[in-house]
Amino acid sequence: MSKTNTGNFFEDFSLGQKIPHATPRTVTEGDVSLYTALTGARFAVQSADTFAMDIGYPAAPVDDLLVFHMVFGKTVPDISLNAVANLGYAECRFLAPVFPGDTLSATSEVIGLRQLSNGKAGVVYVRSTGVNQAGETVLDYVRWVMVSKRDADAPAPETQIPELGDRVAPDQLAQGIPPIDAQAYGTALSGAPHLWGDYNPGEKIDHVDGMTIEEAEHQMATRLYQNTAKVHFNAHAQADSRFGKRLIYGGHVISLARALSFNGLANAFHVAAINSGDHVAPCFAGDTLYAWSEILEQEEIPGRTDVGALRIRTLALKDRPCAEFPYKDGEDAYMDGVLLDLDYWVVLPR
Amino acid sequence: MSKTNTGNFFEDFSLGQKIPHATPRTVTEGDVSLYTALTGARFAVQSADTFAMDIGYPAAPVDDLLVFHMVFGKTVPDISLNAVANLGYAECRFLAPVFPGDTLSATSEVIGLRQLSNGKAGVVYVRSTGVNQAGETVLDYVRWVMVSKRDADAPAPETQIPELGDRVAPDQLAQGIPPIDAQAYGTALSGAPHLWGDYNPGEKIDHVDGMTIEEAEHQMATRLYQNTAKVHFNAHAQADSRFGKRLIYGGHVISLARALSFNGLANAFHVAAINSGDHVAPCFAGDTLYAWSEILEQEEIPGRTDVGALRIRTLALKDRPCAEFPYKDGEDAYMDGVLLDLDYWVVLPR
Amino acid sequence: MSKTNTGNFFEDFSLGQKIPHATPRTVTEGDVSLYTALTGARFAVQSADTFAMDIGYPAAPVDDLLVFHMVFGKTVPDISLNAVANLGYAECRFLAPVFPGDTLSATSEVIGLRQLSNGKAGVVYVRSTGVNQAGETVLDYVRWVMVSKRDADAPAPETQIPELGDRVAPDQLAQGIPPIDAQAYGTALSGAPHLWGDYNPGEKIDHVDGMTIEEAEHQMATRLYQNTAKVHFNAHAQADSRFGKRLIYGGHVISLARALSFNGLANAFHVAAINSGDHVAPCFAGDTLYAWSEILEQEEIPGRTDVGALRIRTLALKDRPCAEFPYKDGEDAYMDGVLLDLDYWVVLPR
Repeated sequence: MSKTNTGNFFEDFSLGQKIPHATPRTVTEGDVSLYTALTGARFAVQSADTFAMDIGYPAAPVDDLLVFHMVFGKTVPDISLNAVANLGYAECRFLAPVFPGDTLSATSEVIGLRQLSNGKAGVVYVRSTGVNQAGETVLDYVRWVMVSKRDADAPAPETQIPELGDRVAPDQLAQGIPPIDAQAYGTALSGAPHLWGDYNPGEKIDHVDGMTIEEAEHQMATRLYQNTAKVHFNAHAQADSRFGKRLIYGGHVISLARALSFNGLANAFHVAAINSGDHVAPCFAGDTLYAWSEILEQEEIPGRTDVGALRIRTLALKDRPCAEFPYKDGEDAYMDGVLLDLDYWVVLPR
Repeated sequence: MSKTNTGNFFEDFSLGQKIPHATPRTVTEGDVSLYTALTGARFAVQSADTFAMDIGYPAAPVDDLLVFHMVFGKTVPDISLNAVANLGYAECRFLAPVFPGDTLSATSEVIGLRQLSNGKAGVVYVRSTGVNQAGETVLDYVRWVMVSKRDADAPAPETQIPELGDRVAPDQLAQGIPPIDAQAYGTALSGAPHLWGDYNPGEKIDHVDGMTIEEAEHQMATRLYQNTAKVHFNAHAQADSRFGKRLIYGGHVISLARALSFNGLANAFHVAAINSGDHVAPCFAGDTLYAWSEILEQEEIPGRTDVGALRIRTLALKDRPCAEFPYKDGEDAYMDGVLLDLDYWVVLPR
Repeated sequence: MSKTNTGNFFEDFSLGQKIPHATPRTVTEGDVSLYTALTGARFAVQSADTFAMDIGYPAAPVDDLLVFHMVFGKTVPDISLNAVANLGYAECRFLAPVFPGDTLSATSEVIGLRQLSNGKAGVVYVRSTGVNQAGETVLDYVRWVMVSKRDADAPAPETQIPELGDRVAPDQLAQGIPPIDAQAYGTALSGAPHLWGDYNPGEKIDHVDGMTIEEAEHQMATRLYQNTAKVHFNAHAQADSRFGKRLIYGGHVISLARALSFNGLANAFHVAAINSGDHVAPCFAGDTLYAWSEILEQEEIPGRTDVGALRIRTLALKDRPCAEFPYKDGEDAYMDGVLLDLDYWVVLPR
């Protein structure tokens, strides 16, 4: 029998199955530097130990999305190596800060299965969990992917679709950060004066700047996360694909949109949760990303007077500036250029 | 009012204005590795803790130019986001070594203003200062940029042009380095036998090697420094610019020229000051950089018998080897291919 | 006399000559992150401090090939700057683990010389040694290169060809690793269940995945190793070369093949020795690398019951999947697409 991992097919998954993932990973200052160099992240809390310590962290925490990508990357060889499509995310919560020196590992549990009516593939729902070396959960999220069947004649499992929340509740949003000394949070150093109370639901923000993506950049980012999805790396095989070229990891688009959002949301120092994310269209090297955001909700976090939460929708577009906030047309279809529709919670000082 | 930073325009600056810059940044070993990977730097003092400690440092210091780029990058969103051109540098002094773990922040003071006669833009002179977490100044320099006006009818400020030195004086050159045990400085490990006394004013050195620049490389370097100048990153917008493509951050050209200069100046382990720098022509991805240097002055540093200073002019050229030391033609115009004319002081063991 | 290093020519080498190389280098977590981002390495021992410490290391060791490249890179300015071809490697042994914070330096000894009959070049055999800051040898290998003569009339040295082993003996393979607690080695986290005893001589493994190489990636990797070979960096000069473009450092191909081999050899956590390596054809940016391996020998390591050794031949091919294990044709010539033929020993838990 082959020693090569060919990944799981739809019929290999069973409800309640728990899958520990390789490879554990010690996050280092090197990873943080590469994340900065590859995305342009500029949030002060993650950039400077002094700034982070002044407000109550023991050191600068690792960017939340870097943690997400590292955990996500580990799940790929077991969950989505034979995926036809990454369909969605839900209930993603960042539950504890991660610091350089921490070691992350990940497990997934199959929480839903639904075979397609054509019998050739099925949808797998997994809850994936990232833990640190002390066994603390740092990240917990659900994603669902469409996975091919190895054998179209394999019997269909009983359909089970998990109930998933539309949004993470505000009382779930403060676990990923220590109590903050909001007085010590310096807005001259952080880059903008606007705190939690300065935003309003319905407000739209054009993040203005554009960022062009190179093949070497998204490949380096995706390998840094030890994500092995073939479509990102193999130009030779992709030449015969529907797109004819390599696809950029959707998570890289999320990170770039988040980095661009600094211009307008400089004090949104923590991504507390991702409610849903839709990769509307594929992204390729050479595309220039723009982004804009709408404030969906402004919520207090129960038990916290130091920080508050904003629920935000951030749209990433390719080759299309966002001064007119392009989103959907009258038919409820995404406008040309939309790549990403991300609904998430961020935390700001009050 | 928009929460997006659109940068300052000429009329937003006033004489004596002090501007604290976001984002503070803890420099790490990750940044140092990326700097090596992106530039090819090979100076032994910055490369090896053991070598640095043998001669009197507590650890390998961070490359001087990496410090420069990080401080410079912070000034961009406030000073030069609406710049038409970066006109010059002067009086740049490296005043204290920086080590991994140090956190840098930056402020600028407006020290000169001059509106153009057409009323559409003006020249802003700033003195920018980088400080570490202990409040020590590590870097101090003047630069002047031409900045657009938002409103051509805004009144002109009183013209004030600062007096700037042609060159930093030799007694200013030793503050960035501890006393050196020059006996312990091993020239077998450093890469060449030539120390301070082996160079002569008028001597010209062809650095021989060529280095081709890729888009991914200069983008990663520039993002590492959290420099947000749009022209480096946005191929979509640059397609409509005068050049039709992205420009490479001039500082990346400086770093590559410095790295190339190792071949001929291997023991010039410290950049002590930059007297002036002229970005003669724009640099684009695909260009191959060559460099050559002329020794302008050879000076003792008052109070120091361990090290001496060389004032050097380094020229960087694109797609043009430097065996014949191309510089200016009979009309005092730069020859084809010249990208950079940098006048600076380096320190070598005696 | 020029202060520029023009490298040694054939007539500059003499038998028994010992050459200390610049530049010493402290290996850091930043280098490790870049190595992961540039190659996609996923072996658990090198990826996670916790995993490494559980089995007996004091921390996660640096990837063996990263150590090789750093030592190799130092030898380039002295040994192979004027090389016509890199002809072979032998007797390469990894003798002590390297950890972030260690400082590496390198020396070479000339152990063989043979002038070509046309008198224009000669073959130089060197034994190169990498040592850490404590003076321990971490790596020792022989390579031979064909080096041009500066002056075709310079007299030929006496021919001396060293006797080199075909393979490193199994009792030489355990020095690079501490005693391993094989019980603590978790195969769920390491990525595959197959340990030393599960492989058989003659077994062939297709590593399946393909990896496309970008110019920025191989340049960054090669600069990270401070390897200055001109052919990798100078597109302007290479335009006039036989290939018309930059060549990829052969060591980058070795690292990518090793990273690809994780899929099928996930528990081969240590490269203990390289018996021989042949760069069959040049590799260029845009090539997609595939790899497959054959188990050549399965040997116990004298005195070790915790780990065993596999001798492996790994082939790297460009733009050619390896399901049919392409190697040589009936004439004993390498098939189309073969770039690398590497014969080496790896160590796995028993």
